[in-house]
Amino acid sequence: MDFTKFMNKFNEIERTLSPTSSLRLTFDNISPESEEPDANKRLWGVPVPPFVSDKVVSWIEEEFNEPPIYYNGNAVIRKVENVRMIDRYNAKNPTVGTLYLTATHLIFVEPDSNKETWILHMHIANIEKLPLSTTGSPLLIRCKTFLSVTFVIPKDSECHDVYTSLMKLYQPVSINKLYCFNYQPAKDDFPKSSGWDFFKLENEFRRLRVPNDIWTLCTLNMNYELCDTYPRQIYVPQEANTAMLIGSSRFRSKGRLPALTYLHSNKASICRCSQPLSGFSARCLEDEQMLEAIRKTNPNTDYMYVVDTRPRINAMANRAAGKGYENEAFYENIKFHFLGIENIHVQRTSLQKLIEACEQKTPTMSGFLNSLESSGWLKNIRSILDTSSFIASAVDKGVSVVVHCSDGWDRTAQVCSLAALMLDPYYRTIKGFQALIEKDWLAFGHKFSERCGHVQTDQREVSPIFTQFLDCTWQLMTQRSDAFEFNERFLLILHDHVHSCQFGTFVGNCEKDRLDLKLSERTFSLWGFMANHLNEYINPLYKPDVDKTIKPNLQPQCIKFWRGMFSRFESGVHPREPLSDLLLVSKDHCTSLEDHVQHLTKRIASFKNYISKSAKKLQDATAKTYKEPASEINDNKYNYDRKMSELSSADDDHPLKPTEMSFANLSLNERIDSASIKEEINSVAVDWKSMRNVTACSCSTPFDQFSKKTHCWKCGDIFCERCIDKSIPLPGQDSGKPVPVCRTCFRLVQKTSP
Amino acid sequence: MDFTKFMNKFNEIERTLSPTSSLRLTFDNISPESEEPDANKRLWGVPVPPFVSDKVVSWIEEEFNEPPIYYNGNAVIRKVENVRMIDRYNAKNPTVGTLYLTATHLIFVEPDSNKETWILHMHIANIEKLPLSTTGSPLLIRCKTFLSVTFVIPKDSECHDVYTSLMKLYQPVSINKLYCFNYQPAKDDFPKSSGWDFFKLENEFRRLRVPNDIWTLCTLNMNYELCDTYPRQIYVPQEANTAMLIGSSRFRSKGRLPALTYLHSNKASICRCSQPLSGFSARCLEDEQMLEAIRKTNPNTDYMYVVDTRPRINAMANRAAGKGYENEAFYENIKFHFLGIENIHVQRTSLQKLIEACEQKTPTMSGFLNSLESSGWLKNIRSILDTSSFIASAVDKGVSVVVHCSDGWDRTAQVCSLAALMLDPYYRTIKGFQALIEKDWLAFGHKFSERCGHVQTDQREVSPIFTQFLDCTWQLMTQRSDAFEFNERFLLILHDHVHSCQFGTFVGNCEKDRLDLKLSERTFSLWGFMANHLNEYINPLYKPDVDKTIKPNLQPQCIKFWRGMFSRFESGVHPREPLSDLLLVSKDHCTSLEDHVQHLTKRIASFKNYISKSAKKLQDATAKTYKEPASEINDNKYNYDRKMSELSSADDDHPLKPTEMSFANLSLNERIDSASIKEEINSVAVDWKSMRNVTACSCSTPFDQFSKKTHCWKCGDIFCERCIDKSIPLPGQDSGKPVPVCRTCFRLVQKTSP
Repeated sequence: MDFTKFMNKFNEIERTLSPTSSLRLTFDNISPESEEPDANKRLWGVPVPPFVSDKVVSWIEEEFNEPPIYYNGNAVIRKVENVRMIDRYNAKNPTVGTLYLTATHLIFVEPDSNKETWILHMHIANIEKLPLSTTGSPLLIRCKTFLSVTFVIPKDSECHDVYTSLMKLYQPVSINKLYCFNYQPAKDDFPKSSGWDFFKLENEFRRLRVPNDIWTLCTLNMNYELCDTYPRQIYVPQEANTAMLIGSSRFRSKGRLPALTYLHSNKASICRCSQPLSGFSARCLEDEQMLEAIRKTNPNTDYMYVVDTRPRINAMANRAAGKGYENEAFYENIKFHFLGIENIHVQRTSLQKLIEACEQKTPTMSGFLNSLESSGWLKNIRSILDTSSFIASAVDKGVSVVVHCSDGWDRTAQVCSLAALMLDPYYRTIKGFQALIEKDWLAFGHKFSERCGHVQTDQREVSPIFTQFLDCTWQLMTQRSDAFEFNERFLLILHDHVHSCQFGTFVGNCEKDRLDLKLSERTFSLWGFMANHLNEYINPLYKPDVDKTIKPNLQPQCIKFWRGMFSRFESGVHPREPLSDLLLVSKDHCTSLEDHVQHLTKRIASFKNYISKSAKKLQDATAKTYKEPASEINDNKYNYDRKMSELSSADDDHPLKPTEMSFANLSLNERIDSASIKEEINSVAVDWKSMRNVTACSCSTPFDQFSKKTHCWKCGDIFCERCIDKSIPLPGQDSGKPVPVCRTCFRLVQKTSP
Repeated sequence: MDFTKFMNKFNEIERTLSPTSSLRLTFDNISPESEEPDANKRLWGVPVPPFVSDKVVSWIEEEFNEPPIYYNGNAVIRKVENVRMIDRYNAKNPTVGTLYLTATHLIFVEPDSNKETWILHMHIANIEKLPLSTTGSPLLIRCKTFLSVTFVIPKDSECHDVYTSLMKLYQPVSINKLYCFNYQPAKDDFPKSSGWDFFKLENEFRRLRVPNDIWTLCTLNMNYELCDTYPRQIYVPQEANTAMLIGSSRFRSKGRLPALTYLHSNKASICRCSQPLSGFSARCLEDEQMLEAIRKTNPNTDYMYVVDTRPRINAMANRAAGKGYENEAFYENIKFHFLGIENIHVQRTSLQKLIEACEQKTPTMSGFLNSLESSGWLKNIRSILDTSSFIASAVDKGVSVVVHCSDGWDRTAQVCSLAALMLDPYYRTIKGFQALIEKDWLAFGHKFSERCGHVQTDQREVSPIFTQFLDCTWQLMTQRSDAFEFNERFLLILHDHVHSCQFGTFVGNCEKDRLDLKLSERTFSLWGFMANHLNEYINPLYKPDVDKTIKPNLQPQCIKFWRGMFSRFESGVHPREPLSDLLLVSKDHCTSLEDHVQHLTKRIASFKNYISKSAKKLQDATAKTYKEPASEINDNKYNYDRKMSELSSADDDHPLKPTEMSFANLSLNERIDSASIKEEINSVAVDWKSMRNVTACSCSTPFDQFSKKTHCWKCGDIFCERCIDKSIPLPGQDSGKPVPVCRTCFRLVQKTSP
């Protein structure tokens, strides 16, 4: 059987079958890029899709003599039966099932409960073979999504097989083998181009009113000559000349010269760069002039800050390598600050310890609190927020800031984006947050491939820098839930897709990498995908009109362990019904009812109007009848064709013209009228089904804690995101705005309202 | 001027003036018990209310030569100007104001912001005079409500005066001087008898179907002869004879023999007692028979548990004092368990350390987490929950449990009540939770006077045992927000009033104490007060139909620091809009709109009906008119007096009788009709005012984080609890249920609907 056909069929089945988790849905649709895979590459006579590397093919051929079996249309490389899955909180009741290893996923199927656990290979962080136990050989798999699961495989040899297979599959050597180059969304989802053009750097700077008479576009980097990890377009002070720019660039690590990243309305700005190559004594006049030029862009204060995000000791240590920090003696009118965010190695260890804190075998309260403290995770989060807050409040007070760390693409990216997030309400919208990531992380460069371990790399390069940025954002969100358009789910989806490489968005380390890889042609954009799911990310508490600058409370009690991220997959830890989801439903319900009330009120007004006018008319008519009954009957004939249903368009301002109406035609049109009013009234669900104990959509998709449950505004029933994909105005609502309805209701409304 | 008049006037002013905090309101209404205070007791010729002790009067007379001044009608003992108030998070910007010391409160008034801080003397936990600083002499006051505030008084002598005055005032020597014996609520609030009869022990046991053929009422304690800290009514196995009861009582510390406290539907029970006086070798056949009798009450299992809540080492240590634990050799079919909850001294120190953790001078993340961990507070909370959970799951499985600690009124009270809370959904209602406290804390005895430091006592007797019970309840609530009828505010109010002694409910240590003190005649009941404020305590997520037994998740990540309690007064720490409050408003809004939609829909149906029937009638009439116009006119005359407003009572089932109607009368009645429909439609607010940025009620009471903000269902505006004290059915709502409205709207609705 043809592999492609299998894959297509699998995709088709997938779209109808019940998934275990809605999060999974976004990761499991894979099919080859073209209908015809490379005809030369075959495995047991079956064409192999191009994303399975030759190495894997030959390895499979060497290892096996038989053709593969299939699970759900997925070619299975390994299938192991009687596997026990142990999750930490259920160690006493492991579930027994079958483990399938495919080219892209590890799938565990529990035959009794019909439950499936899918693990995307790209999400695997590490695999550990634990010591043999009496029940079998345990394999501990830790994921980048903080899922931690142990499979106990009866035979040690089988376990070893699965282990070695996974080791080969989970981390590609080449960036060209990443999942995104093969991922194909469901047919009618969105086109490949969607999302790639959402955020253009020049548009974002135009929004900040740049270029202007003070800041200009620097054209020296159009071919990445000045700095190949910077964007083509960088904005610098008008005053900065070519010599200054080139000089400064040469004096900065990796050529990352000071460039504008955020301009506040008060003319104070945030510029970013890397450390100077100052060593113990070197100086660079052009760099000094460059910083002076930046200082002068802000006429309101006669000094500016240079924030070195590193602890002073780290900065000093760098001098031995010819790098280091600015010599205060050479830079005038600048106040230097060291702000103590630790380096990537400390952060990596910190996360490892945090994960260990969550994974205690016999969890004790002191054990957890001690491990949480000694992991330093919250301390590190707090120091990132502290530095960002320092920058934001300086800018808010009108003082410009130049920020750097070592290479200026880890801590600098964190604090520049977080400071801007605190300063500019736009960045706290869904679109704005994406634009912020595009600017400070994608355009200005961040080593996603290494930091997230997308490809096989030096383990010392891996570090949760972007995860920390999301954690900091979450901390701000929990403190100021009214200031953010998006919710926790938005951050989790973002986090998971940064690591899944399902979309090209976070592939590569800088703008140049992404152009070279032709990602916008070869892969889908996460922004395009997210644009189709915006309603899942809405924070019901958001009000755009809140304070421009938000000032986080950095008291230790206010920095919290992000259970939603790090204990996400621990069943029983989470609230059954997240308050924010309930609130969102309540607000939607209110909106629907308010609208319906408006409509009914107007309908009553028109009836009232109609009755009173008609009564008057009748009185006149009754008086008339005795004189000229015939003429009245003629009038009736004229009115005979007017439909009562015209009432439905009547409101206070445009009432029916009752003087032209008469009652004689009523009985004839009553049925139409009755039906239309009934339709109006029934078109809006007054009662909405309670979210409590709703465990599955009517399409039988089971709901879990991550599932977005949506009400149909017409029938009030609860559906999953895939079933509520239509919007239509309801006849019983006054605003005429399209509202979410289920497919059945959509057809009903479509049928009746032409 | 007469003191009493001042007090009365003060109360009157108080009721109209803007308070700083809504919590404060419940503590500041004080007035003498009778109109005529003891004529003999006078201070500078002014009659002194009886609650000011002679000691204080003579002391004031000795110290002062001048008559006192007044603040807000309160006689001021000390008045100090230019005092700086420092709260920990605002150390850099202290507020300057005037400090007034009255007989009951410490009041700090900031003249610029018109803000007042009231501290009830009863709430003061301790006062510390800190070393003299350059700005003056600082006085640190820590409250039992976890408010911690420092007043810097310019002159050291004045500070010393305030200090010594407070030391005399804040903790009475005699229980008869407690606040409750003088507290008088606002006039129209509730009568003194209200609440005292809400919870009778026999009713609670009757609810548990006790007495029955297995459990009987023991009459031996009717005059507290068996055990004076137990209730009169105790329930014991039918099989237990007098010899066993007396023998067992004599063999137990303080006579606290095993008695029934909870009976589950599966016949498994929880009995409580104190430790046996076993020493190293003593045994008591009657006690052994007693436990055997208890075991036999449950026919479903052939064994039962005895849970000793103490760590084994503590129990062993008690043997040297002739106490200890049951010798397993003498008790058959019983499984003994030690469960490691630390004693009152460990808990006291734990809370002190927790408070220190919150009070760090230069707060660091590690510092906070380390202090939180080393305070052991969360560990202790977890071990109480763990023990309770052990008991609950045993009972749930059908195994009876006998629980004791040392004297059986600290840890035993905690775990018996918490286990019952997990087992019985009734206890998770407002009424049930109060009944639970009445049973396991008030009736079975808990040393509130000592543990809460109501009166001057050995500091080693103070311990936050009841606070821990509330904390544990809060932990359960955060995990299972659907299972509790009440909210966090309910727990906080409860906590504060256990310490305020404003009500007699928690005064004294056992049933006998309370009878002796005649509390139900001399003081008000907290339950009576709370019954008037139930709507402030409602949890919007509560659904009574959830699981009978709740099983908490005791993973360390799930045991949380209760910021709402311990960091309650730290500004900026709390969310601006608690999600649960918003949700409650949304739900009310939905309910109102749904009801209104029902009404409008029925109104439309009746109109429709009316029009169609009338049209038919008209057709007939028009036909008739040509034949017998006169008779029709007669009919009209008959109908002339019928009012169009009758329509408002029409619905689908009871439509107007249109055959008896005609249109001729319409124009005349149109005005009435129009007005009534307009009134209906306007009677329900479709838009509700947003809670955001609402900082004060229309009565100018400022809102803070504790204020309950309530919408008027008629005008949709936001009011404080005192302004929304009326409920009335609205003409535009179908159910006819009374709904909350503001006073203005109440008058409007009353005027129009007779």
